[in-house]
Amino acid sequence: MSEIEANTAHPPRAAMLVIGDEILSGRTKDKNIGTLADFCTDLGIDLEEVRIVGDQKSAIVAALKALSAAYDIVFTSGGIGPTHDDITADAVASAFDRPLIHHPEAVRILRERAEARGWELNEARLRMARTPEGADLIANAVSGAPGFKIGNVYVMAGVPAVMEAMLAALAPTLPHAAKILSVTIEAGRGEGEIADWLSDLQDEHPEVRFGSYPYQDGTRFTTRIVIRSRDEEALKKAAEAVASRLQSG
Amino acid sequence: MSEIEANTAHPPRAAMLVIGDEILSGRTKDKNIGTLADFCTDLGIDLEEVRIVGDQKSAIVAALKALSAAYDIVFTSGGIGPTHDDITADAVASAFDRPLIHHPEAVRILRERAEARGWELNEARLRMARTPEGADLIANAVSGAPGFKIGNVYVMAGVPAVMEAMLAALAPTLPHAAKILSVTIEAGRGEGEIADWLSDLQDEHPEVRFGSYPYQDGTRFTTRIVIRSRDEEALKKAAEAVASRLQSG
Repeated sequence: MSEIEANTAHPPRAAMLVIGDEILSGRTKDKNIGTLADFCTDLGIDLEEVRIVGDQKSAIVAALKALSAAYDIVFTSGGIGPTHDDITADAVASAFDRPLIHHPEAVRILRERAEARGWELNEARLRMARTPEGADLIANAVSGAPGFKIGNVYVMAGVPAVMEAMLAALAPTLPHAAKILSVTIEAGRGEGEIADWLSDLQDEHPEVRFGSYPYQDGTRFTTRIVIRSRDEEALKKAAEAVASRLQSG
Repeated sequence: MSEIEANTAHPPRAAMLVIGDEILSGRTKDKNIGTLADFCTDLGIDLEEVRIVGDQKSAIVAALKALSAAYDIVFTSGGIGPTHDDITADAVASAFDRPLIHHPEAVRILRERAEARGWELNEARLRMARTPEGADLIANAVSGAPGFKIGNVYVMAGVPAVMEAMLAALAPTLPHAAKILSVTIEAGRGEGEIADWLSDLQDEHPEVRFGSYPYQDGTRFTTRIVIRSRDEEALKKAAEAVASRLQSG
């Protein structure tokens, strides 16, 4: 996606809603949050909040309404398959107060795929064509059944490969701003030793954000310092200041 | 934890708040959600919602207030280290309208550790002793600096090994209910082929919850059916009904 130029000066503010009992029970370990976070960073979209709720319509509707009102863009993953517990389309229709229909183009896509594979286009498979009235489809190059967009909400599948395919289809259509650049510096020492001067540096370099990430290297705790900014020059100066501070002790 | 007996008939309803810019930027891929989900399942605690917010005090306070009011238990991870961007203790104190203090027992723990290792107990390290007034500490067997509990909120570190150590310390103190039991059945076919009768089975077995999880096996989409319930007998009957349905075609 590096060839995509910024088309907006104001970084869009985004949220994600992950839908599925299997994530909350621990049976499935989510991979989509990390994927979407990387995707947003690449497009210069600020992902500011993520929520995970189960397959309960009231919980999905409440989260959708809150996030849709608070952010420019809301991405959802999960709950758009053919089974009784796939209720995301119902919840999105409720949240936007629209009737739920079988989207004609989605029905066509599902019928073509079913015919090509000798499948019956049964009631369950047709569920995957349901969208709120007025939704636009999101292509699914992996398994056919499309996602959809309505208002500022982008509804995608929960299977990681399918969500990734949908993001790839979406990328050129989304607003995107200058990418947030980052520099990572290995501090080679614990957070407790660098925190005081790092805080001072943050005050001296307000155009960048310093993050400090402790991790275990064997039995030893050490730290990565990450500096983030949309301003390349400011980032360079801040990185030099950190390097100089690390050298001096 | 299998030796812990249920001590409450009503499964506690829990939420988790993950705090950290690094998760939302994609730089760090969260592992704590899956860990806490498994932990809750083991203790019969119903994890019903997760939120992720960045290192912004207003966002943390708003999420804490909403989750603390809506759920019996709130677990947080992240933002309790020594650096300027570790502001979880500040946010929790604000959310509970309590002064932020240096907890005397936490100071003692940090001082002992610093003395043992020849570290200076500097201002940054002392930050890790800050809690809202009235908080109880959560032991940290990995790196010393404790978490804390106030009201129904359990504040833990973001480093996975440390959060796990804090959960181990907490387990015996938490309310826990009968564990949700589950049976997983490989359907060996796509969701579209089983969805119609699975929905009928859900209607016939209201004491259990059927979930259906599609996944890719090479290029083929297949499905796992997961049945969950606290009622062992109902679970067995539902599993038999699925097996019988799969055999008949």
